[in-house]
Amino acid sequence: MGVGISFWVSLWDLGLGVWDLTSSLHQQVRRTIRRHGLVPPGARVLVGLSGGSDSVALTRLLLDLAEHGEFTVAGLAHLNHQLRASAERDESFCRLFAQRLGLPIVVEAVDVRAYAQAHTLSIEDAARRLRYAFLERVAADIGADRIAVGHTQDDQAETFLLKLMRGAGLTGLAGIYPRRGAVIRPLLDVTDVDLQAYLASQGEPWVEDETNDDLDNPRNRVRHVILPELDRAAGGSTHPAIARAAGLIREDGQWLDELGRERVRALAVRTGNRLELDLRSLAELPPPVLRRVLLLALRAAAGTREVGLEHVEAVAALLSGTQGGVDVPGSRVELRGGKLVLLQQGAV
Amino acid sequence: MGVGISFWVSLWDLGLGVWDLTSSLHQQVRRTIRRHGLVPPGARVLVGLSGGSDSVALTRLLLDLAEHGEFTVAGLAHLNHQLRASAERDESFCRLFAQRLGLPIVVEAVDVRAYAQAHTLSIEDAARRLRYAFLERVAADIGADRIAVGHTQDDQAETFLLKLMRGAGLTGLAGIYPRRGAVIRPLLDVTDVDLQAYLASQGEPWVEDETNDDLDNPRNRVRHVILPELDRAAGGSTHPAIARAAGLIREDGQWLDELGRERVRALAVRTGNRLELDLRSLAELPPPVLRRVLLLALRAAAGTREVGLEHVEAVAALLSGTQGGVDVPGSRVELRGGKLVLLQQGAV
Repeated sequence: MGVGISFWVSLWDLGLGVWDLTSSLHQQVRRTIRRHGLVPPGARVLVGLSGGSDSVALTRLLLDLAEHGEFTVAGLAHLNHQLRASAERDESFCRLFAQRLGLPIVVEAVDVRAYAQAHTLSIEDAARRLRYAFLERVAADIGADRIAVGHTQDDQAETFLLKLMRGAGLTGLAGIYPRRGAVIRPLLDVTDVDLQAYLASQGEPWVEDETNDDLDNPRNRVRHVILPELDRAAGGSTHPAIARAAGLIREDGQWLDELGRERVRALAVRTGNRLELDLRSLAELPPPVLRRVLLLALRAAAGTREVGLEHVEAVAALLSGTQGGVDVPGSRVELRGGKLVLLQQGAV
Repeated sequence: MGVGISFWVSLWDLGLGVWDLTSSLHQQVRRTIRRHGLVPPGARVLVGLSGGSDSVALTRLLLDLAEHGEFTVAGLAHLNHQLRASAERDESFCRLFAQRLGLPIVVEAVDVRAYAQAHTLSIEDAARRLRYAFLERVAADIGADRIAVGHTQDDQAETFLLKLMRGAGLTGLAGIYPRRGAVIRPLLDVTDVDLQAYLASQGEPWVEDETNDDLDNPRNRVRHVILPELDRAAGGSTHPAIARAAGLIREDGQWLDELGRERVRALAVRTGNRLELDLRSLAELPPPVLRRVLLLALRAAAGTREVGLEHVEAVAALLSGTQGGVDVPGSRVELRGGKLVLLQQGAV
């Protein structure tokens, strides 16, 4: 009888545990969707499906949330990258998964290697570009207005650290955006571990990514070496803290970028190859807005050339000095008659 | 004769190399001082001296820059922390260094361990608090209006990573400030390696910190394990990129914090234990400013209790909902008649 009771208690605990897990996961995803306005009422959502735990869980969670009738899961899309031995297995898995859920699925195969070579891109960049082009195409074909992809808090933390160490300080530290055009990322506030626990509790299978052990690849080093080391130093998972920081920095940056665009539109006067900004108006800008105005002005003059933080700083130094000029990509910048003047190259 | 020429060339190269190094280091420090307005004209600067390469180089660099007459190095201050076997050696070194440069020096010894115990602080926190209190005291005694300390780009990168992994997302991600009150950090844009190369080129000795190998200490783990791993993943030093990111994030955050303070002063109406904010005015704020206004309002109601990001988010969720209330540290927050109302605990 003692056994009976403890059996009951265990089931009860388990039941509550699963219920809590599922419920809080759904709540978190719904919160992310609401907070960033990811899915407008009545939207038709296409889900990008790799067959991994993230995108399988994404499909299941969106189907559950769609039951309230606020939006529809319009279908699935799987791109066979033909990069790994498991590519065919993954494709069949996705087809069967779609069939079981009664969802339409579009599958296509691409030659990532050939594309990468033709466009001198890394395999990772080529795959990303092909994948999003494919998803946009399928969305247009099936009349979907949102494309959901499975990036999680773990991806967010990795991307943030990668950008941090590469010095993407001026514009790119924000990490992964919850939404970019039609692409939405409802899982950005949940972890891989929680998603896998949820799938396990539902008896829902997924395919494992072939582990990429190549530690020469920076992303793998961040995932397999650096993040675990950070966790060890902090005495617990650092992913939530890093992902949250990335989100706050993104939010700050997005609004400041917007202010910068507004101000440069109001202040910059273009005449032929000459771009002028009034020095007194620039002096009134707070440093974060000034930095963005200078970046945008330098970019406008630079054409396709890269403008870096060092160029923005050089022009900022010019502003705080009394005279002189400085050469930046595509133009020369000088102080003339109360104006900051950008002379596009060849126009001096 | 061939030998003679190559000897000449080597000396010439070396000479130029040293000259360039010194010159660019001085320029960088001068740039940091100018950019952040660290030293007002005619200022008297006290230098905090540990005897390590950073603070020895700081003293030398400031003396060189002071030759232009824009400010004076008023003296040195060394605090003997009595924590390591080398403490006495370091103290004598500092006294001799000051004597050689003809600068006044104030030396004091403290019992960090006892202070840490009495105030339940970590040794690191206790040492920091005692050190800054000592420096402020000496500055007042000798009539110095600025206190220069030797934090470098390396310290900046370490501190940023530590804060990142600890989740100091809401206010603390900025890392080390170039200036806080009278304390200034002119070396924040230069590296330990460059400072040591400069001292070596000048034949200027310094004392080595006893290496702290205790990898259970998070800062040591960041310094000895995580930053080298990041460098390996990036294929080069990541300190400059991380320090630069910290600086940009600080600049953005400082201005946004200021906007938040301005808005909360304009919007918050306090009546007894009640703090009210007009909902329509809140709705007009951009997300980064709204977040700061809510944080400041919650803090005002929380007294000494900690307010976290989760509380700010809970209130933000309340704003985007239609009704209800939420409990936060020290108060209950509700929507009532077009207002966000914070009721301090015990006042419901």
